Amino acid sequence: MTMPAWRGFASDNYAGIHPEILEAIARVNGSHQIAYGDDDVTSALGNAIKDHFGQQAEVFPVFNGTGANVVSLQALTKRWEAVVCTQTAHVNVDEGGAPEQNAGLKLWTVPTPDGKLTPELIESQAWGFGDVHRAQPAVVTITQSTELGTLYTIDEIADICDHAHQLGMKVHLDGARISNAAASLGTVFGEFTTAVGVDVVSFGGTKNGAMMSEAVVVLNPDAAPGVAYLRKSAMQLASKMRYVSAQLLALLTDELWLRNATHSNAMAGLLADRVGQISGIQISREVQANAVFATLPAEVTARLQQQFRFYTWDQATGEVRWMCSWDTTVQDVERFAAAIALEMSGPFDAVG
Amino acid sequence: MTMPAWRGFASDNYAGIHPEILEAIARVNGSHQIAYGDDDVTSALGNAIKDHFGQQAEVFPVFNGTGANVVSLQALTKRWEAVVCTQTAHVNVDEGGAPEQNAGLKLWTVPTPDGKLTPELIESQAWGFGDVHRAQPAVVTITQSTELGTLYTIDEIADICDHAHQLGMKVHLDGARISNAAASLGTVFGEFTTAVGVDVVSFGGTKNGAMMSEAVVVLNPDAAPGVAYLRKSAMQLASKMRYVSAQLLALLTDELWLRNATHSNAMAGLLADRVGQISGIQISREVQANAVFATLPAEVTARLQQQFRFYTWDQATGEVRWMCSWDTTVQDVERFAAAIALEMSGPFDAVG
Amino acid sequence: MTMPAWRGFASDNYAGIHPEILEAIARVNGSHQIAYGDDDVTSALGNAIKDHFGQQAEVFPVFNGTGANVVSLQALTKRWEAVVCTQTAHVNVDEGGAPEQNAGLKLWTVPTPDGKLTPELIESQAWGFGDVHRAQPAVVTITQSTELGTLYTIDEIADICDHAHQLGMKVHLDGARISNAAASLGTVFGEFTTAVGVDVVSFGGTKNGAMMSEAVVVLNPDAAPGVAYLRKSAMQLASKMRYVSAQLLALLTDELWLRNATHSNAMAGLLADRVGQISGIQISREVQANAVFATLPAEVTARLQQQFRFYTWDQATGEVRWMCSWDTTVQDVERFAAAIALEMSGPFDAVG
Amino acid sequence: MTMPAWRGFASDNYAGIHPEILEAIARVNGSHQIAYGDDDVTSALGNAIKDHFGQQAEVFPVFNGTGANVVSLQALTKRWEAVVCTQTAHVNVDEGGAPEQNAGLKLWTVPTPDGKLTPELIESQAWGFGDVHRAQPAVVTITQSTELGTLYTIDEIADICDHAHQLGMKVHLDGARISNAAASLGTVFGEFTTAVGVDVVSFGGTKNGAMMSEAVVVLNPDAAPGVAYLRKSAMQLASKMRYVSAQLLALLTDELWLRNATHSNAMAGLLADRVGQISGIQISREVQANAVFATLPAEVTARLQQQFRFYTWDQATGEVRWMCSWDTTVQDVERFAAAIALEMSGPFDAVG
Repeated sequence: MTMPAWRGFASDNYAGIHPEILEAIARVNGSHQIAYGDDDVTSALGNAIKDHFGQQAEVFPVFNGTGANVVSLQALTKRWEAVVCTQTAHVNVDEGGAPEQNAGLKLWTVPTPDGKLTPELIESQAWGFGDVHRAQPAVVTITQSTELGTLYTIDEIADICDHAHQLGMKVHLDGARISNAAASLGTVFGEFTTAVGVDVVSFGGTKNGAMMSEAVVVLNPDAAPGVAYLRKSAMQLASKMRYVSAQLLALLTDELWLRNATHSNAMAGLLADRVGQISGIQISREVQANAVFATLPAEVTARLQQQFRFYTWDQATGEVRWMCSWDTTVQDVERFAAAIALEMSGPFDAVG
Repeated sequence: MTMPAWRGFASDNYAGIHPEILEAIARVNGSHQIAYGDDDVTSALGNAIKDHFGQQAEVFPVFNGTGANVVSLQALTKRWEAVVCTQTAHVNVDEGGAPEQNAGLKLWTVPTPDGKLTPELIESQAWGFGDVHRAQPAVVTITQSTELGTLYTIDEIADICDHAHQLGMKVHLDGARISNAAASLGTVFGEFTTAVGVDVVSFGGTKNGAMMSEAVVVLNPDAAPGVAYLRKSAMQLASKMRYVSAQLLALLTDELWLRNATHSNAMAGLLADRVGQISGIQISREVQANAVFATLPAEVTARLQQQFRFYTWDQATGEVRWMCSWDTTVQDVERFAAAIALEMSGPFDAVG
Repeated sequence: MTMPAWRGFASDNYAGIHPEILEAIARVNGSHQIAYGDDDVTSALGNAIKDHFGQQAEVFPVFNGTGANVVSLQALTKRWEAVVCTQTAHVNVDEGGAPEQNAGLKLWTVPTPDGKLTPELIESQAWGFGDVHRAQPAVVTITQSTELGTLYTIDEIADICDHAHQLGMKVHLDGARISNAAASLGTVFGEFTTAVGVDVVSFGGTKNGAMMSEAVVVLNPDAAPGVAYLRKSAMQLASKMRYVSAQLLALLTDELWLRNATHSNAMAGLLADRVGQISGIQISREVQANAVFATLPAEVTARLQQQFRFYTWDQATGEVRWMCSWDTTVQDVERFAAAIALEMSGPFDAVG
Repeated sequence: MTMPAWRGFASDNYAGIHPEILEAIARVNGSHQIAYGDDDVTSALGNAIKDHFGQQAEVFPVFNGTGANVVSLQALTKRWEAVVCTQTAHVNVDEGGAPEQNAGLKLWTVPTPDGKLTPELIESQAWGFGDVHRAQPAVVTITQSTELGTLYTIDEIADICDHAHQLGMKVHLDGARISNAAASLGTVFGEFTTAVGVDVVSFGGTKNGAMMSEAVVVLNPDAAPGVAYLRKSAMQLASKMRYVSAQLLALLTDELWLRNATHSNAMAGLLADRVGQISGIQISREVQANAVFATLPAEVTARLQQQFRFYTWDQATGEVRWMCSWDTTVQDVERFAAAIALEMSGPFDAVG
């Protein structure tokens, strides 16, 4: 089997493993380690996470982002409690119903223009406290960077946390692309999580160069009891944990997380810049991380998709999504932009 | 961080990754592959699984054994149906309640002398069909090799399948150690699964040298609809699937599965042989795969556990469990046996 | 304890039991009957339901509307399937998360102007078939009459059923107020359910004069297997079933369902008529069943609520809901309307 | 429809409603009451329950026993916790998997000779605290009187509570037949519940003369938060609650609970006495409440079941169960005993 040479813009999950992470996996191989997390690598990861998120932070490595989210939300809710999220949240639309099926979680969803909650938007679902007919809103979950490629500022997250806490609610941050967010904000993880009151983070590694490695990072242990049990019962406890931990540890070593995320963000910026110059195409959302959303004629999209894989985001408007990865090259972007320009120069019907 | 040099007998999950598997992971790295299983590696794995389990077999790689079991059992049951298993089954005692919590599954448990079900034992729970008060028995799950290190013969599995099917029930085989079973039986996987009527297999890779890689292998697609959806909603769908598949594919290449399992079985045999010669120790169960169970004085166990990690299986009887791995060496076994002999030669109170 | 004499407009659940239903309960008392539904009363109810819904109809009496809905939706879905409903649906907003918690059901919600789905609105969530990341839309549930007091015409339901069935989906009708709907449409139950393709109905009795009695009525048995099991496991199986069945049977005897519903509908019509004449109040939704929605100044609402119990529906707009019951009298309505008129004639700030 | 005159011994659920309870239902009818429990009848019930169980007791009326048990056990457990019960417990064998399906509860079951747990028996499953692989034992549930017609003494319950609390566990008492227990013990409810440390009781009304009425009675509110929410989400919240409460209140009025239970217990005693005199029949369990278990030839059972409904408890041993109700008469018993004697005098094969 030969690996093909192509690189696409469909998903940051199409990329492979960064060499430093693969080396880290190899380095912790050999001999025996205690299974299920009592190993030296996981212990070292625990310290690294404390360096980034503060001394009270506890890390629970898991397999994937859905697992991190479902374990986090279970820990943050009692059996009868519910979660407020955006309509476009990954937990709502892209997890195959995992929060509902595995944890019985009710999601109170809020439409948003840009994938971001605000205190006002949260208010639209955070009500009915004490009313037994209403699944009790107990957690606000936000995604940073969002599913729409946008970013919360530190102040915006602080406001959400303040508001949620005043309501007696807790805050979860889905950080599947937390490194892209930190890189774009030019700050460290703790500044827009621990420092402003986020209770639990789903810390993403896979999309930023790992093989399969995410973690539940508990910033406020009182708010999220039982994570060790829930990780097991949610089928997210790796027996040979050292290899999950090694990936995350490698990301936190020599700022690999930052190098990878800075690069993928830059590639998205470059792509937006190149495409923005092509007549007839609209960059439809602010490019703040590693995603570019654009609106182009359906015919052009169809022809481009025969050469490059990417997803149509909204059939009705013709909006498409292009993701850049840690391994996207300038050449990839230039070639793709050129192909788009070429297709746009041809004959097509303008979007209705 | 330096990896320690010790090797223990506590679990076959303490061992690392076999070099051929690590190489396979590295080999499929580089460039882009479609995420979530539409990649070339997973496609090749699909063919390899068909070679081993028959042309109708479909493979769904997952992260861990609990995931494989829960997805399998969900696919095999309707919402109101239940599962018959042994009291010592991993699904019953070692999965943190995952079958119940994630899938609402009722387990009808059966005490057994040796970790093995029989048609007669199944009968003790497979009743009440049509009675709405009784969660309907719909699946028999057996473990091969069992949690007690014992093996089902091909005929025994055939009898179970025949009996279950006559009752309108389906059969799941938890093959966390299926390679050890096949190696010990001296046969291929299909002979004691597909050929005798097993409907779904949890195929284990991790304990046999993989990093984290198991699979749901559906042998009877009519019996287990929806696995693709259930794998997702059970949080067991890897985005960068190629790396899960590569591990399983490596195990199926050049008979690595067989080489590893033959070796760990042989080491268990050697250990049982050496220990069996020590006066005062009983090998308490037949050694048919890679587990050795023995009964020894509690004092001796306590002193040994200061040097070697292993688990007491039954506090009351003093029974302990020793697992051998693909990387256990003859020297490891000889050194351990010598340590046991030394401790047994010292002063201690005989067991009760 | 003396029962107070007041009658309010807060809920059709505030009313008591209709005398004919209480008599029916007393009539089936005495001597023994087989428990759990194998009794003569339930058998007679089965026949009565066939008379109303067709010969293929099967009835499963349950305790309450939430139970009827959750059992129905479980029967209509496989483990990985989801339900399309309105945002204002009772299953979404008023069942304390029961569909999610008990059955793991994902609800795909649709905003509507009037509480009614249409093929176009269904389309907004009924997509992604075959995509494992999306909980698979499998059922459309509609409420008749709706939570907003509106009605589907027979043709509208037919269109929804046709559309859903073309998509491979099934249709559930939440008939907590099905009698009000039938009375208002001037037709029989079967005409807007069985005849147009509804698969399962939650048949309501409690709000129309029963004590506590609802039923799952399966119109298409192939679409909804396992109801008998699911009713038990959903804790909705009455041991002394005859008394649940007797209530429903009484409603279906001498057209009590129709008499009660016609009356409560008429009272709502009268109330709307009286209130509509009061200057400064808007009847905010078409009055098609037994609910009246109106917009009035918050101050007036506050003063009225000190005399009469009723709920504010929308704090923002000042919309309130008034429900009429089988026991609401003309005098009740006139007195309430007079009180409203009096309050409206006093000094208050107009709604912003 | 005419109610048949027969009375059987199959179940105490075959009996109807006691006249005083039917009257109580009628008495609270008429006019409006606030729905969902904010009514005067439920308020009066709250006081009556405090009289019986102590001032800290809180009552939550529900529809049926399965509902009471599942709500209780949910309130007593966190998401990852499990329940220790007997193998013969109603929650384990007779609730269609409701605890698992609705609440994801793992039941750790213990075989017992007589349906009763002891500290020693509890010990067999109450272990593994802190081990994430083991669903954490958090609650002990006992049934009083048991499914086998036996009784715990006050001291036995006290010992269980002490032991459980020392382990950090809580105690639930399934009191589907709590009145039979109290009558047999010659004491009041609080003596064997509140006074000895039981945390939550499922209080049974239906089997003791009610129509459909049970309650979750919380004795230790700190141990069982969220019952009001869980009752709703478990589909056990009656809209016209006054009628559920009225039944329980009637039972607690003029000692109806005691009169009914004393009677059914006495009838069981009479039946055991009569049958015990018949040669060839063994009363197989101590008769301590309203159940009689006996062993008789299968042929005789078969012939008797053509005249009287009752259940075979154990096909293998020929053990049958006969239940007496509040409405069982001396004549019923004498006639039944005579029929048994007649059949036993005929030709039949002795039990193998």
